[in-house]
Formats: sequence, C-alpha cells, structure tokens
Amino acid sequence: MEGAHRVVVIGGGFGGLNVVRKLRRAPVQVTLIDRRNFHLFQPLLYQVATGGLSPANIAAPLRDVFRKQENAEVLLGEVVEIDAGPREVILSDGKQPYDTLVVATGVSHQYFGHDNWEPFAPGLKTVEDATAIRGRVLTAFEEAERETDPVRVRAWLTFAIVGAGPTGVELAGTICELAKETLRGNFRRINPANAEVILIEAADRVLPGFDPKLSAKALASLEKLGAVVRLNHRVTNIEADAVTVENGPANAAQTEQIATHTVLWAAGVQASPLGKAVAEATGAQLDRNGRVNVQPDCSLPGHPEIFVIGDLANFTGADGKALPGVAQPAIQEGRYVAKLIAARLRGETLPPFKYRDLGSLATIGRHAAVADFGWCKFSGWLAWWIWLVIHLMNIVQHQSRLLVLMQWGWTYFTRNRSARLITQVPKGQDI
Amino acid sequence: MEGAHRVVVIGGGFGGLNVVRKLRRAPVQVTLIDRRNFHLFQPLLYQVATGGLSPANIAAPLRDVFRKQENAEVLLGEVVEIDAGPREVILSDGKQPYDTLVVATGVSHQYFGHDNWEPFAPGLKTVEDATAIRGRVLTAFEEAERETDPVRVRAWLTFAIVGAGPTGVELAGTICELAKETLRGNFRRINPANAEVILIEAADRVLPGFDPKLSAKALASLEKLGAVVRLNHRVTNIEADAVTVENGPANAAQTEQIATHTVLWAAGVQASPLGKAVAEATGAQLDRNGRVNVQPDCSLPGHPEIFVIGDLANFTGADGKALPGVAQPAIQEGRYVAKLIAARLRGETLPPFKYRDLGSLATIGRHAAVADFGWCKFSGWLAWWIWLVIHLMNIVQHQSRLLVLMQWGWTYFTRNRSARLITQVPKGQDI
Repeated sequence: MEGAHRVVVIGGGFGGLNVVRKLRRAPVQVTLIDRRNFHLFQPLLYQVATGGLSPANIAAPLRDVFRKQENAEVLLGEVVEIDAGPREVILSDGKQPYDTLVVATGVSHQYFGHDNWEPFAPGLKTVEDATAIRGRVLTAFEEAERETDPVRVRAWLTFAIVGAGPTGVELAGTICELAKETLRGNFRRINPANAEVILIEAADRVLPGFDPKLSAKALASLEKLGAVVRLNHRVTNIEADAVTVENGPANAAQTEQIATHTVLWAAGVQASPLGKAVAEATGAQLDRNGRVNVQPDCSLPGHPEIFVIGDLANFTGADGKALPGVAQPAIQEGRYVAKLIAARLRGETLPPFKYRDLGSLATIGRHAAVADFGWCKFSGWLAWWIWLVIHLMNIVQHQSRLLVLMQWGWTYFTRNRSARLITQVPKGQDI
Repeated sequence: MEGAHRVVVIGGGFGGLNVVRKLRRAPVQVTLIDRRNFHLFQPLLYQVATGGLSPANIAAPLRDVFRKQENAEVLLGEVVEIDAGPREVILSDGKQPYDTLVVATGVSHQYFGHDNWEPFAPGLKTVEDATAIRGRVLTAFEEAERETDPVRVRAWLTFAIVGAGPTGVELAGTICELAKETLRGNFRRINPANAEVILIEAADRVLPGFDPKLSAKALASLEKLGAVVRLNHRVTNIEADAVTVENGPANAAQTEQIATHTVLWAAGVQASPLGKAVAEATGAQLDRNGRVNVQPDCSLPGHPEIFVIGDLANFTGADGKALPGVAQPAIQEGRYVAKLIAARLRGETLPPFKYRDLGSLATIGRHAAVADFGWCKFSGWLAWWIWLVIHLMNIVQHQSRLLVLMQWGWTYFTRNRSARLITQVPKGQDI
C-alpha cells in the first residue's frame, strides 16, 4: 500500500473506531493515533466506578481490534499540534503526514470556571477516574464504620452527584443499590442502607435531554430506590467536606450546605484541547464549550481534507439543534466520513451527513430504565431489557461481552458486585 | 458476644484469612485488620501483570468474605505499633485491644541493599505492582514499534526477569507467550515474537526449591518457549536502560551488560515492617530477612498470647529447615493457631504445629508445569491440569472462579489475553 492515500485518525473512541473500521476495504493507509492503548466503552464506565465490572471488561486493546485490518496501523502517541499547510500531525515526539485527517478526541469534564472543585468532585471519563471514584465511594463506607460521632457518620454516608443526565442518573441509581443491597451485612457498626444519595440538577427535571414524561418516570424510579433528587438546584461551592447548593430565583435564592465527603461530578463537559489546535491550524470556529463547528459533511470550512467528528464536533442538524454528546452521533459520523473518503477517491461525493436518531436509553436500577425512540417512548422492564441487550451487543470484544453478561447475571441473582477494590488510595485520605 | 475473648488478626492474606475462618464457631470476637479492603490471591498475580486476568478476579473484598461470620469484623487500618503490656494494637488513628493477637502481614520485596534499583525493577506483590508491570511490558512493545534505530528496538524488546523461583519462572513463561502468541499481528513495524525474555538466576538451576529433576524439566520448557535462562549469574547493577550481570567466581568474574528498559524483580523478599514492631514489643528475635523467629506453636517466647504466622514467621520445622514462603504454610499455620486458641479457651492445649508438605507446583506456559509432591514428582500435561484445578479451587469467591475459568478457556483457545491495558502511565515514560 505504499503511495496509498494516507488517512490519519486521532482518537480511538466511538467516532475514530468507526472511521477506521469502515475504511477496511478502501484503497487507503489508515493510522489511528491515541494516547491510550485501548478503546473504552464509556456508557458502562459507571459500572466500573461502582464495583460491578472490571476496567478490562469495557476496554478493548486497539491493536487487537485492528489486528486483521491490514490497511490500518495503531500509533500510541500524544498529538500536540496540527500543521494544515504541509498536512502533518505533530506528536510530542514525531510527525505523521496525512492526506485526510479525522479528529475525534472527544471531551473531558469541566467545572464551569471552578477548577478548584475538581479534587473534591471527580468526573467520570477515564478508567482511572472510574477506579478513583470506586475507591472514594468504598472508602466513605469504611470511614463511616470507623467514625463514632453520628454527625460525621452521616457526612460519610452522604453521596452527592452533580448533574442528572444519563451518567448522573445511572451513578445515583447504582450507588443506591450498592448501599442497600450489595453491602448488606458487610459492616458491624453502620447500616450501609442508611446512606443518602443526593442527585443535584440545575434544570427542572432529571434526564433533561429526554421526553418530560420519561423524566418523570426516571424520577419516580430514583425515588423508589431511595435517592433524594434536588431539581432546580445550582451548585455554588464544593469543598472537602461539603457541597453548597442554591435554589430559587437569583435575587431571593435559598442556600443550603450539605455535609458530605463524596461528591461526584456528572455535569459539564468541555472539548479536548485538540479542538483549539484544530481551530488554530484551520481558522475553524469553536462554540462556547470549545467544540469545533463543522460543515454539513463534518469537514472544516476551507479544509475539505480535515474532518472533526463525535463529541469534539459541534454539528448542527437540519432542525437547527446540535447533536447530543453520546455514542450514536459519533458512530454515525465516523461511518459517514469513512464512506465520504472512499467516495472521493472514486471521484464521487456524498450528500451531507444526516443523523438518524436511534433513540436514547438510561437505566435506573434493577428492572427500571427509560427508552426514548422518538416514535415510541416507554419505561420499565422492557426498556431495561432493551438497554441490556443493546449495551451488550455494542461491546467490541466477544470475550468482554461474555464476561460482562456473566457478571450482570451474577449481580442480578446475588445482588453482589465483586470488583469492589480500593486501589491507589485517593488523595488526602490515608487509610 | 460482649465480654468474649478478643482475637485481633493483623493481615488478610492466606494466614490471617484462615485464622478468622477457622474461629467461626469459637466463643471469641475476632477483629481482622488490614490496610487493604481485599484478600489477594497472590499465586495468580503474575497473570494480572501479563494481561490475562483483571485485578478483581483474584481479589476478594474482605467484608464480603466474612459477611456471614457474626463473630468477625473487618477493620481497615494501618497498624504502627504493638503494645504488649496493656495488650493493645496501635493504629495510625486509634487503638484496638486484644486478648490474643495473630500477626500475619507477610513480606515485600527487597533489593539486597540496592534500593536504588527499585524504580527500574519493580517487584510483584500488590495489585498496583501488577498493573504497573503490565503497563511497563506493554509500553515496551509500543516504544519498540515507534523506534527506528534497530539497536534501540532490540533494547525495548528485551525483558529481563531477576530470580527464577516460581514467580520468575511463571512471569518469564507468560511474557514469552504474550510476545509470541497474544501480540501476533498486533504491530506493523516490529515482530513481537522477536522479543527476548532473559531469566537471570544466581543459583545453578531454576526453581531452586524444587527437586533438581524438575528444575531441569522447567528449564527445558522455558527454553522451548524461547526464554533465555542465565544460571549462575548475579545481578550487580540495574539502571534505566541496562542490567549488569556477573558470572563465574568472584575473583575472575565475567561481567556483561544487557541493554533493556524492562527489568522485573522476582528475587529477594523482606519481612513487613511489623516484624520489627513485634520484636520491639516482645523481645522476639528476627532472622536476617526480618522475619520473626517463632516457637513450635507459632507463639512468641514469653508471649503465648501473640502468634506470628505465614511469610512473616521464621518457623523451623522438626527437620531443621525453615518453611518456604508460599501459601500452604500460611494456611496451615492459620488453621492451627485458630484451633489452638479455641482449645485454650476450653482449658486444653495442642501439640506443636506440624507442617504437612502438600507439594509445590509451577507452570511454564501451555500444557507445561512441574509438580513436586515429595512422594511423587512429575511434569508436563498432567502437572499443568493439576495446577489449573488447584489454583481455581483455591480462589475465594465463586464468581471469581467462574470468571477466571472463562478467561483461561478463552486464552487457551484463542491465545488472546484481553486485560492488556496500559493504565497510570509508568514513571519516566510520557506516552
């Protein structure tokens, strides 16, 4: 394939993975660059954070995924800059020339200007985030068991989750189950079922991206699990031992301080720093979250050879609405861009990218989920099964599917979660 | 059980776990203290270090293990001192009184006075050690793939393991399989099968604790897998990019420098610092590795209420030989001490502890293992199956057994290892 058209894809998430895969029969040489050696199935990351699954169950080594795709190679490296003139990607220790470039490096969490909150309220984007959160949550129960002062016990047994999107809702539901079912009988001085899980959301309903009826169903499911949901509450401060929330109109807001040592952040996201590098290299515009505004074919103005896809792209659909930051847009954009690259090499082109909304799903504990397929919205047992099957089928490796299925089955029947390890003791706590 | 005889067990390894379990029907109140919240099945730790298993597969949450044992409680904490007069264990943040104390905190690795080698040659004792080694080994292949200078490629593809006891032999065998089978087709510029795995041993044979005939069999199996075994070689220096070995008599030694970035330490062990604390509190003697010399009933001279068991104890058997630092002595001592505690409460006593050698096993890759049962020594296919069954049956949790079995089956048939994640990037390497 010497001399073949060189496609460089940055980022091995849902977007990047699908570009590379879909190019497998195209007359191109693909290089996938990632800082990590694995693709992470982020929709199940919250289950790692709550001890139900191991990191390897939801992480597929990129080299293994593309072992048999002869026109693809994987490069482990950190991209620092893009040089759109000579068409080169600048790595921290080298260069990679391209004919077509696809940037799909996603987003990380942001604290709306309060970066000082980060040490007290970790977000959930990486495997390390997940094992750190797992350690924090389990350590809180351990501290409660050792504490004698009832006020302090209560603070250790209070878990605050900021943001009631799918991740926040799923975290809240699972921590409730962990406390009330999995840890039952594990302690001698405290009753873990007394834990209070508080879900804080600035909007007037949970799952703001879903249909309001489904938000109501999700709220009912959360409350049935014992979670306390605070809607219309803004977080104004986070410290080591408390989160402060505000409620009501700005001029007559009521402030409340919740004593807790465990705050989890599932609120804002901001674009990967590579968005800025792309803008600098191409003159493309960024939106207020740092995402790159893309054209209807996911390419950049004046640079048809550079595409930005997935969470890093701000793609405005025909209805004027931006696409949500979940797996489906990234997957579909990835496939579209691959097809477009192949079409161009045949001297053809494609109509603009059109997002096909396959629906949204979120689980709230055992037998409870909400499904929003647009033409059909429902909740409960069936939604839960659909959630299960869809997530299982989308895990990349067969072995991982089997391992996840087995662990789900085990948890279902025994209510146990076996991956409850406190590793790399969280900072500031010296147990 | 207020007012019951208080047994405090420090350390939730094989020794401590078995004391607590065996006391389940005794009229005592047991407190198990550990710094970690899980029991680790160390014999399979090398499989985590080589990407075959996940940490949670070989770690059982201690609270879960003793969930139903009403006379036992688990305390997460760090013991800093023992006060034998008032019979108290001093924690970093509290105290725990005891009537009987069992210390079973094991050993960590030591570098024979060369602590400066540690950053370049990590040992394998904890879950974090295992994931760090996994990251180093996988990163070495990544660096080799990116390197263009053939001499440097060779250094990245050279893996040196110091010490040919069971851990060293198993690590060497598995890294050979990883390079030659699991990673096949994963790279485009290097052939991982060209990796050189060098096992360095100061003695004149591998597995020095086994029968010489089995050492010869193990050597043959290792060489068949492609490992290079250097017997009678002493390590004299370890740096970031080389290990120096010496061969021959001290006055006419030949020195050789092996270029490598990946040195794994499977050589010396030293007692946990708590051995010294026990000696200071009781006047007990330590051996040269810091292990506590114990009486024939595992108690300390002048302190029949304090027992030291497992790797931390230097127990000299009737034959004048010290017990090996493996799981069986710890398990048997733990059960014996529990029985002795129960007997004493009935006003009885027991004859001295007698170690029953159930034999030793070590695997060297697919279908190859050596078994030394004393009355019967053999190697090959049958030894491999026995190794498999014994290890599987000794994993504490049923779910973990099933998960390990499934992953072994998968690896057996596909030669794949799915837990190949590089997490918490190793120090000094900024991929």
